[in-house]
Amino acid sequence: MTAPLSIVLFSGTEDKLHAAATLAAGAAAMGQPVNILLQYWALDAFRTDRIETSHGLAFEATHGARDDRSALPWVDTLRMAKELGELQIRACSGSLEYLGLDVGDLDALVDSAGGIAAFLADAGDGPITFI
Amino acid sequence: MTAPLSIVLFSGTEDKLHAAATLAAGAAAMGQPVNILLQYWALDAFRTDRIETSHGLAFEATHGARDDRSALPWVDTLRMAKELGELQIRACSGSLEYLGLDVGDLDALVDSAGGIAAFLADAGDGPITFI
Amino acid sequence: MTAPLSIVLFSGTEDKLHAAATLAAGAAAMGQPVNILLQYWALDAFRTDRIETSHGLAFEATHGARDDRSALPWVDTLRMAKELGELQIRACSGSLEYLGLDVGDLDALVDSAGGIAAFLADAGDGPITFI
Repeated sequence: MTAPLSIVLFSGTEDKLHAAATLAAGAAAMGQPVNILLQYWALDAFRTDRIETSHGLAFEATHGARDDRSALPWVDTLRMAKELGELQIRACSGSLEYLGLDVGDLDALVDSAGGIAAFLADAGDGPITFI
Repeated sequence: MTAPLSIVLFSGTEDKLHAAATLAAGAAAMGQPVNILLQYWALDAFRTDRIETSHGLAFEATHGARDDRSALPWVDTLRMAKELGELQIRACSGSLEYLGLDVGDLDALVDSAGGIAAFLADAGDGPITFI
Repeated sequence: MTAPLSIVLFSGTEDKLHAAATLAAGAAAMGQPVNILLQYWALDAFRTDRIETSHGLAFEATHGARDDRSALPWVDTLRMAKELGELQIRACSGSLEYLGLDVGDLDALVDSAGGIAAFLADAGDGPITFI
């Protein structure tokens, strides 16, 4: 069995969300399971009432003249990844508590809530990428 | 032998330090050794004269109304992780030099100073997570 | 065969570029192949017309009094890494398109352009680090 690609998705800017989504979609397309744990600002970006609005770009982008409001198609890319392969998205229970959110506040892309231990157990001996 | 979870801990904001600490504590609790290399702003956060003060939140947090000064219990979580399992924290010698610090300026959580080569040798074929 | 150290290099600040370069050089010196995918702001930093200018520091650095303009020798470190071992630097084709760049606009350190699938195929079952 192929070890999954595990991603701790922490950052909530459009560019990092899109980087994570394309990495997940690439792995799913190649038959590798993908195991995502949403924390902090990434978790906040999956709120049903915010997921379709832009979340800005990373700090580096603000140095230049680039439009900070441009949205990237990370939601569509994750939806495609779920159709292409095995993609599990878990909301970190500690981050839910920190942000005062419930899993019911999140988009249907999120499969469940859970902790670090469950995430690490699923990660097995595969790579763990923090984004 | 289980390969360790290796973390290059670069970022010095409370939220990322806490994300790293909970990942480390989770792995330690599950019997996986943890191998942390402190660089740049994370290293600075371990200074004895600063470790108990808040280091702010990541850039994303400043977009919203969240209080930038709220501290997260990352120091306690790392102390707990050291009691739970095998956790090694190494100060990157290159970053010590860059910041003009000596290992004696750092909290007792830091076990030693060392370079990338020693960190990579300990990482073996396990995951390497940059936070 | 040793699995490569694979790095998705996303961030374009001097400190993160240098952290990636020293990690790559350390692995190359120890005989481990290194597989880098340049995305977004890191890709922008490899533009021939910008690679020798400073790209600032990460957000954390701006909290303090540190000079935001100090350059770090990440370009030299990557050049050294290429001499020490097997280091492949690929420009992400999606990010090239997003930034309106062509591989010909980039420094000679960049070997080729390619997508996530090629990067993941080269990564095999080795670690994948997002910086």
